[in-house]
Amino acid sequence: MFDPASIKALTFDVFGTVVDWRGSIARDLGDYFAKRTAPIECNWATFADRWREKYQPSMERVRSGNRGFVKLDVLHLENLRANLAEFSITGLSESEIDHVNRVWHRLDPWPDSVAGMARLKKRYVLASLSNGNVSLMVDMAKRAGLPWDAILGAETARAYKPQPEAYLRTAEMLSLAPAQCLMVAAHNADLHAAAACGFRTAFIRRPYEFGEIKKYDLAADSGIDLDCRDMHDLAAKLGC
Amino acid sequence: MFDPASIKALTFDVFGTVVDWRGSIARDLGDYFAKRTAPIECNWATFADRWREKYQPSMERVRSGNRGFVKLDVLHLENLRANLAEFSITGLSESEIDHVNRVWHRLDPWPDSVAGMARLKKRYVLASLSNGNVSLMVDMAKRAGLPWDAILGAETARAYKPQPEAYLRTAEMLSLAPAQCLMVAAHNADLHAAAACGFRTAFIRRPYEFGEIKKYDLAADSGIDLDCRDMHDLAAKLGC
Repeated sequence: MFDPASIKALTFDVFGTVVDWRGSIARDLGDYFAKRTAPIECNWATFADRWREKYQPSMERVRSGNRGFVKLDVLHLENLRANLAEFSITGLSESEIDHVNRVWHRLDPWPDSVAGMARLKKRYVLASLSNGNVSLMVDMAKRAGLPWDAILGAETARAYKPQPEAYLRTAEMLSLAPAQCLMVAAHNADLHAAAACGFRTAFIRRPYEFGEIKKYDLAADSGIDLDCRDMHDLAAKLGC
Repeated sequence: MFDPASIKALTFDVFGTVVDWRGSIARDLGDYFAKRTAPIECNWATFADRWREKYQPSMERVRSGNRGFVKLDVLHLENLRANLAEFSITGLSESEIDHVNRVWHRLDPWPDSVAGMARLKKRYVLASLSNGNVSLMVDMAKRAGLPWDAILGAETARAYKPQPEAYLRTAEMLSLAPAQCLMVAAHNADLHAAAACGFRTAFIRRPYEFGEIKKYDLAADSGIDLDCRDMHDLAAKLGC
């Protein structure tokens, strides 16, 4: 039995749940490299896909203890260099590479995110619980108008999701029991990991996160508390 | 030579600088205990002063390594129990004591804080760099409308000011060099500690923090970059 009155804070996955990372990267890099003095052509959506594929393995080295905690900007940069090599893109200056890497700071929200979160913010504390680092989340929020009350997650917990510490230390910083936190994500695995720590869970349907309709994560698995079409639907289900 | 263009983030002391802790506590507890079924009379401003006097010694035990890091709510609660005993206030339920302790979550901003910070937010990242814990800062900000981009400080750094780690880990989470951060405080000691870590510094004059005009910290010491009457003056000096 799920009671919205038991919830005090909503903790959000961000990449894919709040923002459209793939579409944003394709648009941003497409514009940037088209306007470059020496333009570069590429299927930037595919470039984004390959970049993102390197995300979990790079965090896994940290999660497994084979590498000390480093912020996601560092992992993104290493993965970007590998990706540029794979796509045979050469001749970028270090300042250009830094600008490209920071495309993750410039992601656009899904159309319902800002307005839906504004509704939710009236009743609940809204905190990011992302693997993105603090400055990435701050830059993204200022540009996109995301109404966070607190930016928490991997860097403040010094642990990458789905490690339990990422969820538990975030609840602790909010001075809440895990059961008072509702994890919001478009990925069932994230929600299962949060639920294993005692969080309540809300799935947001983002069928086009990868461009074409997803092959999995189209709806909430059984055991997830809420299955929502978008942030407005979540607000409605919570009575906001 | 101070150049506002070199600054990317403003990091704020909060108690006394952004909010009027003494006046707020006196008003809040005065109202609360007057309306209680069994009213309690006390000079609540003096009660606040004595409570605040226990603040530095309680943090010093953590700073010195004699105690592991605990959040400020915990120190405030221990100090509150001691203070209640000193004032011979007895018979409060645990729920009442918790409500009183959370008065630090309900502090009112100085009259210029919200509007001045809104001006500053247009150009800079605004982060708290307070010894207050995350949930205290979140509750205060939601109630008072403080426009933080990020809530950082002692709890995210796991070190209490004026320890260097409190400043340095905050700059690191903002992905900035210390010299790109401007520490804003009404206390010279806080600014000197930040400057020793490489931060730039802005003093805000809060002569009535302790009710009667202060005996010290009336103006910036030499070496502080900016000496400001209030947050609007800071915004003007930064060209916002």
